[in-house]
Amino acid sequence: MTVHELEFRVSYADTDRMGVVYYANYLILFERGRTELMRGAGVRYRDLEEEGVFLPAVEANLRYLSPAHYDDLLVIKTWIAALGRASITFAYDVVNRDTAKSLVRGTTKHPFVNKSWKPVAVPPRLRGVLTPLVRPAA
Amino acid sequence: MTVHELEFRVSYADTDRMGVVYYANYLILFERGRTELMRGAGVRYRDLEEEGVFLPAVEANLRYLSPAHYDDLLVIKTWIAALGRASITFAYDVVNRDTAKSLVRGTTKHPFVNKSWKPVAVPPRLRGVLTPLVRPAA
Amino acid sequence: MTVHELEFRVSYADTDRMGVVYYANYLILFERGRTELMRGAGVRYRDLEEEGVFLPAVEANLRYLSPAHYDDLLVIKTWIAALGRASITFAYDVVNRDTAKSLVRGTTKHPFVNKSWKPVAVPPRLRGVLTPLVRPAA
Amino acid sequence: MTVHELEFRVSYADTDRMGVVYYANYLILFERGRTELMRGAGVRYRDLEEEGVFLPAVEANLRYLSPAHYDDLLVIKTWIAALGRASITFAYDVVNRDTAKSLVRGTTKHPFVNKSWKPVAVPPRLRGVLTPLVRPAA
Repeated sequence: MTVHELEFRVSYADTDRMGVVYYANYLILFERGRTELMRGAGVRYRDLEEEGVFLPAVEANLRYLSPAHYDDLLVIKTWIAALGRASITFAYDVVNRDTAKSLVRGTTKHPFVNKSWKPVAVPPRLRGVLTPLVRPAA
Repeated sequence: MTVHELEFRVSYADTDRMGVVYYANYLILFERGRTELMRGAGVRYRDLEEEGVFLPAVEANLRYLSPAHYDDLLVIKTWIAALGRASITFAYDVVNRDTAKSLVRGTTKHPFVNKSWKPVAVPPRLRGVLTPLVRPAA
Repeated sequence: MTVHELEFRVSYADTDRMGVVYYANYLILFERGRTELMRGAGVRYRDLEEEGVFLPAVEANLRYLSPAHYDDLLVIKTWIAALGRASITFAYDVVNRDTAKSLVRGTTKHPFVNKSWKPVAVPPRLRGVLTPLVRPAA
Repeated sequence: MTVHELEFRVSYADTDRMGVVYYANYLILFERGRTELMRGAGVRYRDLEEEGVFLPAVEANLRYLSPAHYDDLLVIKTWIAALGRASITFAYDVVNRDTAKSLVRGTTKHPFVNKSWKPVAVPPRLRGVLTPLVRPAA
């Protein structure tokens, strides 16, 4: 299973006055998705950080296909689209759990950096764990 | 002057535990930028909505070049990159006011829709006001 | 069981540069708590709204006892502290699931209002469902 | 002048699906208010932190009197309600700039702590600067 699924219930806090999830908040859902994908693979991001490896975003792209509404139950589908020598790209599809409709799709790209934000190679153990999860584009 | 500039002071609320502005929050800054660009051109977005015209995002793209830190004073530079028959694309450059360094660049694309989220043509008055502000890509 | 428990994992988005959950975000957790308490009692807040009943906050009080950190698993404990003729007061205790330590305690008070924000009496069915959940202060 | 005033324009990001500013977001406005009050008094909170002094919140109380709407221009009025040996209490009144109507009132209490969250006395220079700003309750 290379696609990780995480449920998320839309709260008032997530919505804006159009009654739908505010467009910036999907990047929060993306963060939740990739953190749990990694946890599912046995990698706690907090441990990575304690080892001095960080994954700041250098790129984010979102396509908003259909709005999510208050109290909707969403599924954040996350997978690894690419694993480079020193970077990783996650892909996301946020769907409505009841209708299975795709709401927002996107990608985020992250270099592996040390505490001084200098690029570092993907730690070998991490590469071993993540490589089987890479799911090439359809 | 086709590039609108808006100052923004980074608060604790904007930062994350890496000590920098959380990556989703730039989409909030982008919203502030395009709202004030339009206000500067004499168009209050709230009035547009009262006339039944909405500008939901269908696309957002961000490049994170350098982090913004707590209490930094930022300038959100916003311009219109394209004005289609029924859509508008804004471009943004968030810079550090003191160093003039570019921190995050991005674009957002918005269709003009009515209350039922059906596409509508750009209202003529609005087209007249916004057309002179279109700044073609360099 | 009059105390509802909801788990919540702290994400980067929730933290600030002190490395802990930003103080405003507990009000979001409180919202998640009371919504799920009501859902657990068979009342979907979205349905209440469709029937024209709203529960805006008129009061919120928070005591911050100990910080929550990134990736901590929290439990939001929520109960009904008081049910008046036309208002409801929820109480909350956010604890660290692993240490059981209490991190933030608080209350929020909400009048029942209609679409025009005019006070209305608690709908009888709702009163019937919520009354057994009231847990008087210790 | 012991009351600091800061303008704030309500964005989409600040609102929820009721069309008003989400109740948690006033704590963000309070943060902006107290930071600028201190800056106005010549104290940059970021400098305090660099000197190893932090002001986490231990208490927050809010009364929501009237909702703020999208695009409203607000004034965050902030003053010092009390300055203890090792703590400070700020008070806030968020008003609509056009109507002068008071929307939300509140207080937040903050101990002075060091990097290990241990209480410390208010630094003398800071006490000297802040004492004239204390405004006893009416």
